[in-house]
Amino acid sequence: MQFADRLNNVETSAIRELFKLLGKPGIISFAGGFPDSAMFDVDGIRAASNAALAEEPGAALQYGATEGYQPLREQLAAFMASKGAPDVAPDQLIVTTGSQQALDLLGKTMIGPGDKVIVEGPTFLATIQCFRLYGAEVISAPIDGDGVQVDALEQLIAEHRPKLVYLIPTFGNPSGATLSLARRKKVLELAVKYQTLVVEDDPYGDLYFGEAPPPSLLALSSEVPGSRALLAHCGSLSKVLSPGLRIGWLIAPPELLAKAVMCKQFSDAHTSTFAQATAAQYLKAGRMPATLANVRKVYAERAQAMCDALRKELGDAVEFVQPKGGLFVWLRLTGAGGKVADANVLAKSAIEKGVAFVPGTPFFAQNPDHATLRLSFATADVDKIREGVARLAQAL
Amino acid sequence: MQFADRLNNVETSAIRELFKLLGKPGIISFAGGFPDSAMFDVDGIRAASNAALAEEPGAALQYGATEGYQPLREQLAAFMASKGAPDVAPDQLIVTTGSQQALDLLGKTMIGPGDKVIVEGPTFLATIQCFRLYGAEVISAPIDGDGVQVDALEQLIAEHRPKLVYLIPTFGNPSGATLSLARRKKVLELAVKYQTLVVEDDPYGDLYFGEAPPPSLLALSSEVPGSRALLAHCGSLSKVLSPGLRIGWLIAPPELLAKAVMCKQFSDAHTSTFAQATAAQYLKAGRMPATLANVRKVYAERAQAMCDALRKELGDAVEFVQPKGGLFVWLRLTGAGGKVADANVLAKSAIEKGVAFVPGTPFFAQNPDHATLRLSFATADVDKIREGVARLAQAL
Repeated sequence: MQFADRLNNVETSAIRELFKLLGKPGIISFAGGFPDSAMFDVDGIRAASNAALAEEPGAALQYGATEGYQPLREQLAAFMASKGAPDVAPDQLIVTTGSQQALDLLGKTMIGPGDKVIVEGPTFLATIQCFRLYGAEVISAPIDGDGVQVDALEQLIAEHRPKLVYLIPTFGNPSGATLSLARRKKVLELAVKYQTLVVEDDPYGDLYFGEAPPPSLLALSSEVPGSRALLAHCGSLSKVLSPGLRIGWLIAPPELLAKAVMCKQFSDAHTSTFAQATAAQYLKAGRMPATLANVRKVYAERAQAMCDALRKELGDAVEFVQPKGGLFVWLRLTGAGGKVADANVLAKSAIEKGVAFVPGTPFFAQNPDHATLRLSFATADVDKIREGVARLAQAL
Repeated sequence: MQFADRLNNVETSAIRELFKLLGKPGIISFAGGFPDSAMFDVDGIRAASNAALAEEPGAALQYGATEGYQPLREQLAAFMASKGAPDVAPDQLIVTTGSQQALDLLGKTMIGPGDKVIVEGPTFLATIQCFRLYGAEVISAPIDGDGVQVDALEQLIAEHRPKLVYLIPTFGNPSGATLSLARRKKVLELAVKYQTLVVEDDPYGDLYFGEAPPPSLLALSSEVPGSRALLAHCGSLSKVLSPGLRIGWLIAPPELLAKAVMCKQFSDAHTSTFAQATAAQYLKAGRMPATLANVRKVYAERAQAMCDALRKELGDAVEFVQPKGGLFVWLRLTGAGGKVADANVLAKSAIEKGVAFVPGTPFFAQNPDHATLRLSFATADVDKIREGVARLAQAL
């Protein structure tokens, strides 16, 4: 069978292959990129689902508008307002089947073979692959603990004139890094200066541990004239409520949003109205603030426990910036004391010692740093985190 | 903003534009392509959803495998067996976000710019657009009351060497036509002879009114050696249970299925596990046979009422083959007695008289027949159907 040429640009995720090893009994996994199932508000979701079927069974089970179920669009606009972006009207966002579909629609809408896009190095693996499927040449911009380095980013934009710049400005995956306020403004200015679309992917912004992070690019766009017309924002309920609902959203300038809707018509017609009506009822019921407070508290404890254990057990063999939110610690092996400095090598011995993580290399579109790795603190409790880090120390 | 070139190949559905007119008070609509919300088994779906959240809340709300939720794959394999395809193992199908996504994945996997595909003329509009977005040149094969004309199809395959042939063999949309048993075998033989992938889209096969239709191409493939390796089959719960769940599935040869899974990873990661677990519980509860018996009975009555009324009210101004299942009557205006013979003209005067339908032209990838139109009998009750056809007669 002769497949389409676009398939030559990608391969199935290396992480998926790794996950097959996780079935080993007794293994402690820091490998996942998902929230802890034990924290799902099952009662709240059941109540929301039953309310949807009681109040609007026809709408919840019938075909719906490609743009999304209107009551959910209204709730999501209100949710965005509660997060500091007060001027998003319901018709300025569309509901997507997870924020992964928002990325797919941006790819389908914007990217053709040979087009360039700039992402952070490292960034979300599925974004790299998603854009490459549409023929993108994916270019990496360097980051540090304050997110993407904006001077380097400007040089890359000027040189490559990309179709879009994709960033996870807040508690990045895998980096855990958060773009500083000054850099956020600079990114918006670069969008305007070079008339380049910037995509802000923000699945983790609600998961802060202490102070709230700087305002989103979306919220800041009102301060940089012209930037809103060059900004797309992807949101998601996956990390804060439930990935299984597959509820994401895309906020974008009208012309781009209209094209994305046209593409979505032929991608999946619309996102499950059953899931949308459930999410709308959940948000309407006002449960989200308590849910967010709970996940923030639990993840904050786990992040602290992991960072403390890493410092105690691994010492100068690793370096990292303690994350202020999100799900991940991004680690760099220093090789100090002659210890292992290649995360792919460490991953194998770690599995033997009973702990799993994802090596950093697949997260780089270019120039992978083999010394890096990603640890998730989301799904193991504090005791398991300490035990897992101790095993990691043994493996090292 | 500079969009991707692929967008130049498609436009937003003409049907969507028409639907905006349907808000007019008192209008009787034969325009929809959807089932009747009043027939949804809301109690059964609520029970299934609550069972899913009670028995497996973690799995129902967490990320899931891209291939689909395993208990649903098992239930769908059993459902296929109950429909005469006993040899579909759970790992030979993947769950898709509606069967629209199965089409999208086939396009993403198989079709590159300039590739040719053959479809029925007329066929499902969103298939044409979906494949064109991937750059396909879409070629129409003629049909009659027995489905696609296989001699003409063979000529077109031999001439164009298409990437795939897409058919809705049973109760086609919009044609209502059903491919005869002899032609089904011939189609499978053509797949083998020309080593061409055949896609069987089967959302309507369960909606038969009297006798069951001929076996699906999938079921017949065991009789034509080599054909199974060249056959993809798309199924859906949308027309028989609920479109809002967005549960479809794709059965395909292993290599193609693996590529489709890779593409789906980057399209939406996976279909809502909440909807999948609900569907799995629904099927497991054994409610489907009664649900199917009910929708068959109701649609059969409505189809009969519509055909009787068309014969009585419109007489020789129209011709049609009475459908034996599905949701649609496909009508051709004869112009007899000097009456309107252009369905686009009739659509406008019909709206004025208070009845809506979809003109046939958008359903043709090539050489549209302007005398054709599609009537759905699914969503109006028998009295409304008679009244609507009477209005149509006035408009004519």
